[in-house]
Amino acid sequence: MKHEIKTQWQGNMLFNADSLGGSFKIDADTSVGGQDLGLRPKALMLTSLAGCTGMDIISLLKKMRAEVENLNINVSGELTDEHPKIYKKVHVEYCFYGKKLKKDKIEKAIKLSQDRYCGVMEMFRQFAEITITIKYFENK
Amino acid sequence: MKHEIKTQWQGNMLFNADSLGGSFKIDADTSVGGQDLGLRPKALMLTSLAGCTGMDIISLLKKMRAEVENLNINVSGELTDEHPKIYKKVHVEYCFYGKKLKKDKIEKAIKLSQDRYCGVMEMFRQFAEITITIKYFENK
Repeated sequence: MKHEIKTQWQGNMLFNADSLGGSFKIDADTSVGGQDLGLRPKALMLTSLAGCTGMDIISLLKKMRAEVENLNINVSGELTDEHPKIYKKVHVEYCFYGKKLKKDKIEKAIKLSQDRYCGVMEMFRQFAEITITIKYFENK
Repeated sequence: MKHEIKTQWQGNMLFNADSLGGSFKIDADTSVGGQDLGLRPKALMLTSLAGCTGMDIISLLKKMRAEVENLNINVSGELTDEHPKIYKKVHVEYCFYGKKLKKDKIEKAIKLSQDRYCGVMEMFRQFAEITITIKYFENK
């Protein structure tokens, strides 16, 4: 399978992007000549990672009958100091919300996403050291 | 330097993402349980690549006094057949538009982006075979 995306320059550092599922603007920060009219390109990789593992986990938990009430996934990436600046350390924080959370199934779902299903995680593993944290917020 | 992004699950396969420079929705295709209400997470990596190298090239061409009238960058990524599905082959097509395009400077800018400045390209190189094409569209 092949994915194709297109971008068109819009002046200064602004680009329009036609990606899978929609169009959006990409722009740089004002400190580097941009106008802050769109998303920063590099951090899109971190949202790609969160979305990919998040979808895995939601569908795995559904199959396992271990649904949660809410899920937030926060990702941070530490860049190298020198050019080309890459994410050398990436941390993924999974926050699960609900009543009587089935922690064993949640942890199994995360492991399956990390080891087997999440292609973005697999790509990140080739250049970054990845760590994770799991947080549970249980209602009574 | 550290980048941080946050995502919040919105039901089904839909997530809200707060990334650098803005917020947007991530969703899966209807064929895999999504509702097509947002961007596909994996392809965001390809737009990240286009935006990163595109900004490099625009700012390098400005410094070199070799501005162009327009620039489109198209990226395609071929996925592996097996899980975890990663982009194994990535092709970047640069399309430059203008009068009397300074091709030597354009090619130097692309090379500088690829070899030195584009962090996203450097990350991609760790898991994909990257090829490029340069197309020139000159006005008379």
